[in-house]
Amino acid sequence: MQNLKIELTKNPKQKPADESKLGFGRIFTDHMFLIDYTGEKGWHDARIVPYAPLEMDPASVCLHYGQSIFEGLKAYRGVDGKIRLFRPEKNFERMNISCERMCLPTVEPDFALHCLKKLIEIDQDWIPHSDGTSLYIRPFVFGVDKQVGVHPSDHVIFMIILSPVGAYYASGLNPVKIYVEENYVRAVRGGTGFVKAAANYAISLKAQQEAGEKGYSQVLWLDAIEHKYVEEVGAMNVFFVFDDEIVTPELQGSILSGITRMSTIELLRQKGHKVVERRLSIDEICEAHKNGRLKEAFGSGTAAVISPMGELNYKGEKITLNGGEIGEITQYIYDELTGIQWGKIEDKNNWTESAIEN
Amino acid sequence: MQNLKIELTKNPKQKPADESKLGFGRIFTDHMFLIDYTGEKGWHDARIVPYAPLEMDPASVCLHYGQSIFEGLKAYRGVDGKIRLFRPEKNFERMNISCERMCLPTVEPDFALHCLKKLIEIDQDWIPHSDGTSLYIRPFVFGVDKQVGVHPSDHVIFMIILSPVGAYYASGLNPVKIYVEENYVRAVRGGTGFVKAAANYAISLKAQQEAGEKGYSQVLWLDAIEHKYVEEVGAMNVFFVFDDEIVTPELQGSILSGITRMSTIELLRQKGHKVVERRLSIDEICEAHKNGRLKEAFGSGTAAVISPMGELNYKGEKITLNGGEIGEITQYIYDELTGIQWGKIEDKNNWTESAIEN
Repeated sequence: MQNLKIELTKNPKQKPADESKLGFGRIFTDHMFLIDYTGEKGWHDARIVPYAPLEMDPASVCLHYGQSIFEGLKAYRGVDGKIRLFRPEKNFERMNISCERMCLPTVEPDFALHCLKKLIEIDQDWIPHSDGTSLYIRPFVFGVDKQVGVHPSDHVIFMIILSPVGAYYASGLNPVKIYVEENYVRAVRGGTGFVKAAANYAISLKAQQEAGEKGYSQVLWLDAIEHKYVEEVGAMNVFFVFDDEIVTPELQGSILSGITRMSTIELLRQKGHKVVERRLSIDEICEAHKNGRLKEAFGSGTAAVISPMGELNYKGEKITLNGGEIGEITQYIYDELTGIQWGKIEDKNNWTESAIEN
Repeated sequence: MQNLKIELTKNPKQKPADESKLGFGRIFTDHMFLIDYTGEKGWHDARIVPYAPLEMDPASVCLHYGQSIFEGLKAYRGVDGKIRLFRPEKNFERMNISCERMCLPTVEPDFALHCLKKLIEIDQDWIPHSDGTSLYIRPFVFGVDKQVGVHPSDHVIFMIILSPVGAYYASGLNPVKIYVEENYVRAVRGGTGFVKAAANYAISLKAQQEAGEKGYSQVLWLDAIEHKYVEEVGAMNVFFVFDDEIVTPELQGSILSGITRMSTIELLRQKGHKVVERRLSIDEICEAHKNGRLKEAFGSGTAAVISPMGELNYKGEKITLNGGEIGEITQYIYDELTGIQWGKIEDKNNWTESAIEN
């Protein structure tokens, strides 16, 4: 494992005074982690330095050709004072899958995790204390060759920045209104929808903006080929609770393999629920709603954890889910996940680990 | 029209001594154009300043969510000494279509062109003199909000940088070998394939890299839905010359509306050729090859102008086009376009204009 140089800030920033106004991803801590890669030298010059702007050449590949991927995870200040990470190895495994798809060099997961833990140790006082708050962790990898011909970059940077955050949705765990998107698509098989490429999020902005203008919080994405099968909701995976099964779309190449998705499936199965990963059409959802078989629906993701859906708008027809209230299973999985993350309940699966090396 | 501030460099760089070694997009001139946008102030602070790295916050939206678009055009030093642009208004019109799709603010085309011409005037000595060389112009627009929640950026930058370039393909106008891509896709209807979003190019890198490893210069993209209809070749539009018609795929939402494509269609029609924009399947191409009806094929784009195809590999079967030689129509359209661009032949369509305002 290579050497990690540390340069501490001489000018620590003011920490946020009011934790109720943190918002999401707007405030960053005193330090950041960086490491450079070139084809010739491999990964080199791992360092933790004061958080500061990057010097970026205007011709950098990431600006022109979007060669960039990211991860998102959190450090939680537990009720017992312990600072925890939730399945961080899964993030660094997935980061490498993203890197491979986007022609970026992979990073040794243990080394990435070691560097992350050192960064958290240095900036641990930035982790907020209030209920529902956490330290959002953003690892990202991007190409910085100074050349505007289309090509995978030889010079690549892997960074980690940290942001103290409140709940993702300012309004808390409230059911949100969802617009079923018929025209715009997020991803298609053969593309990059299954990895956390910056490109996927760029492509999603417009539909999200237009849904917002219509009064909807998120878009429910349908598949790009038949515009029929549900894929994701906003930037989250999606679960539909029917009376005899809980269904989440199967991973078929255009859906992100969410770590919250994976954990939700496991927890629900451990509780005895039947969870099925399969194709699920919007017509089946509408039909199940009419028959009274559709009970609940929710999104899952690191940022929001669980986001209950209160209403679906498909072609102008509105489906109210569970009377617009948070459903029993949605609430259960939210309580279970956040309980484990904040050390409130027993972590039977050993998913959490200390965010700081001893 | 707002004020354009100009700050000239005090340290002009050495210009490339050997124009045969320019390559593509690796060398940049002494100055660059920038203008900022915020929701509150609109576009403001238009300036030409010495070419220098940008100060970019690590949390910038463009790095994480790829909210970035670009254009590409060229200034040509004509045989008569005049410096010309080729249909630049088309680039700035398309830039705005790209901006709209990617939730970026649009730019007034006349103002953009004015700023570009001023920048070219200042750096005109950088335009190379040798045959086939030109000044590549890269306008680009990207979001720089310092916030890692997925959202369209409020703070946006529009820049133009300039690069003296040689021919795009070092080997000149030689037929290249093309790999017909069956698995990876570039774009799908409902996505962003019809605009010059950074995202499209990020998604294309892997297929291009793998084709390169197999000994092919470019990928021929098939449609994402049926993997059957040809869309583009590499980052170019594509034309197939049959004995009774010239076919280029119709613009149906996942194909870029190339300015070289548009000009090629017009020039070929003016010459009396039948040019058809329609769906074209790879099977039809294979069939026409067997029947002797397929005569030539080429890609079209600003960077390479025209790129003849010498071989297609589809599912391991190799199709040699025009005996691996440049075809008559390919050569004609290359000569015509480059003739107009470098002022060697009459510009009957008034496509060129002076790159410097008088």
